[in-house]
Amino acid sequence: TLIAVLSGDGIGPEVTAQARRVLEAVDAGLQFEEAPVGGAAYLETGLPLPPQTLDLAKRADAVLFGAVGDPKFDALARAFRPEAAILGLRKELGLFANLRPAKLFPGLEDASTLKREVAEAIDLIIVRELTGDVYFGEKGQRRTEDGRRQGYDVMSYGEDEVRRIARIGFETARTRGGKLCSVDKANVLETSQLWRDVVNEVAGDYPDVALSHLYVDNAAMQLVRDPGQFDVIVTGNLFGDILSDQASMCAGSIGMLPSAALNGDGKGMYEPIHGSAPDIAGRGKANPCAAILSAAMLLRHSLARGEDAGRVEQAVARVLADGARTPDLGGELSTEAMGDRVVNALG
Amino acid sequence: TLIAVLSGDGIGPEVTAQARRVLEAVDAGLQFEEAPVGGAAYLETGLPLPPQTLDLAKRADAVLFGAVGDPKFDALARAFRPEAAILGLRKELGLFANLRPAKLFPGLEDASTLKREVAEAIDLIIVRELTGDVYFGEKGQRRTEDGRRQGYDVMSYGEDEVRRIARIGFETARTRGGKLCSVDKANVLETSQLWRDVVNEVAGDYPDVALSHLYVDNAAMQLVRDPGQFDVIVTGNLFGDILSDQASMCAGSIGMLPSAALNGDGKGMYEPIHGSAPDIAGRGKANPCAAILSAAMLLRHSLARGEDAGRVEQAVARVLADGARTPDLGGELSTEAMGDRVVNALG
Ligand SMILES: CC(C)[C@H](C(=O)O)[C@@H](O)C(=O)O
Ligand SMILES: CC(C)[C@H](C(=O)O)[C@@H](O)C(=O)O
Repeated sequence: TLIAVLSGDGIGPEVTAQARRVLEAVDAGLQFEEAPVGGAAYLETGLPLPPQTLDLAKRADAVLFGAVGDPKFDALARAFRPEAAILGLRKELGLFANLRPAKLFPGLEDASTLKREVAEAIDLIIVRELTGDVYFGEKGQRRTEDGRRQGYDVMSYGEDEVRRIARIGFETARTRGGKLCSVDKANVLETSQLWRDVVNEVAGDYPDVALSHLYVDNAAMQLVRDPGQFDVIVTGNLFGDILSDQASMCAGSIGMLPSAALNGDGKGMYEPIHGSAPDIAGRGKANPCAAILSAAMLLRHSLARGEDAGRVEQAVARVLADGARTPDLGGELSTEAMGDRVVNALG
Repeated sequence: TLIAVLSGDGIGPEVTAQARRVLEAVDAGLQFEEAPVGGAAYLETGLPLPPQTLDLAKRADAVLFGAVGDPKFDALARAFRPEAAILGLRKELGLFANLRPAKLFPGLEDASTLKREVAEAIDLIIVRELTGDVYFGEKGQRRTEDGRRQGYDVMSYGEDEVRRIARIGFETARTRGGKLCSVDKANVLETSQLWRDVVNEVAGDYPDVALSHLYVDNAAMQLVRDPGQFDVIVTGNLFGDILSDQASMCAGSIGMLPSAALNGDGKGMYEPIHGSAPDIAGRGKANPCAAILSAAMLLRHSLARGEDAGRVEQAVARVLADGARTPDLGGELSTEAMGDRVVNALG
């Protein structure tokens, strides 16, 4: 079993190293291969996603991803910016389903800016479509007849794209609280109207799941008003980008939340939801838990080792309950020391 | 001076009646003319925005708007739904600038789900572009070559559209804390790249305003993490729809927040940000403050009576400080009784 390790920029390498240690502790037989990605790859090769890196990601059974990005690359053309690597990997590997759990960890209730009783109730997962929508439609800048500049991007979804992500939403709801909320803007957008129609069609196959629909503006309100009402949310690429970040922040500890991006065959890319945090990079201050929990998702979704995934998640919960805290959580443990704790708790 | 009163559906008529009383108390010489809109207009005439209503809105100096919508109209074709009236009025009157203040009222700190110290710091205004973006681009459903359904909507902005809303953003920042944050998704969208470029160009005329840029996903996070950091936010139609509702909910009391939609000549449409709330309609339970504060915005922006606007706002603050509370704020005052209090406080 081959794991591609693309640790990227900023704190990416530090946190990914701890996630890799945890995987090694779970299974000494896993093989790892590293490759540059993002700004680091751009500096090394002139491209944020060099062909060798993409090739490794394709050969591997799963991709462990760190973080990419640094303001110093903001002035580059879009195709050379670190973010292009993420979009390229998603598209090339067909990673259409982004799973983003958001929940508050026991002991970290104060990390959220939401009132304690509101934050404590958060335990949801956002299923975001990741290879369509206005992200990947035709786009460009042009001149209108009168010579003025205009920027445009075409938003669209086809019924097959909606159907497959809707199924992931329903399947996920089945393994959890049995509630699925589909988010769109069907009162304004035709893309959303098709989305809603197809989600309703798919619902016929899941009579055991309670389906509801919300407009995206209302969903953004409800995530603040009463996030505990949600179990699984399924939505498009753009709305999912916004709502998943909002939900993560509601849960408070941004250093604790993992994500998975999956194709239909178990291939997946796993990454912490936090960014590259260049300001604290290289100083052992980063919290490796989000990366470690991403490794747990890798075990579950790409290696079909749900039990081992559960062991890792419990180990993280245990060390937190014992008071282990990195600086972002108000403690003093270094990135590596936190990794030590988790590895030890694995037993 | 003629005010068009379009009170609409659900609680729209009750709250608008109180806003009108307040305007009458401020100036007995104002003329009012009513017309149906939304679901009420559809039932009466077959159209959510009948020609006579649009005509009145065009003739009037300002439009006082209540709320529209009811789930019972959801199955109608888009053009017949109550929301079509709002979009039609915005487009036909050229109301390109939506101003949405969000702040916590003294005495209502507990209404927000955010921790008290976080919520107390909220005092921001969102300047949302209202007549462009993916709302008004070409849209439809079509079949791809293989016969599958596809929905599409074209997102776009031209430089003139961006320039005029950016100016409103900068001007607004000037009258407040001098900080403007422009929100886009320039790392993915060409529409956003043009947006960012043009905002940066306009910034040259406002050296006294501190401009920053945020990606929309980060903005949604920051509105939860530290909403007090924002003064004025300027953004496009779609992102503004999402972020302004999120910000309102962060400030807690949805029954307290007004909005204005302006064209370039002082014509405006003023409405509470809350919806038609069919569940409590006709029972005197609605909070009229958002509608009354919308009337204050009408005085300020369409009638150039900033002082009177301030008097109304102070009257609302005073009655709240004195403990006046409608049911949404945990009290027992009826809609009309709350209106009485405000009118009396005007002196
Ligand atoms: C970096 C950016 C292109 C990306 C996105 O918008 O998808 C990021 O925000 C994310 O959510 O993974
Ligand atoms: C009703 C709907 C079309 C409208 C919008 O999306 O603009 C509403 O959500 C708003 O913000 O005024």
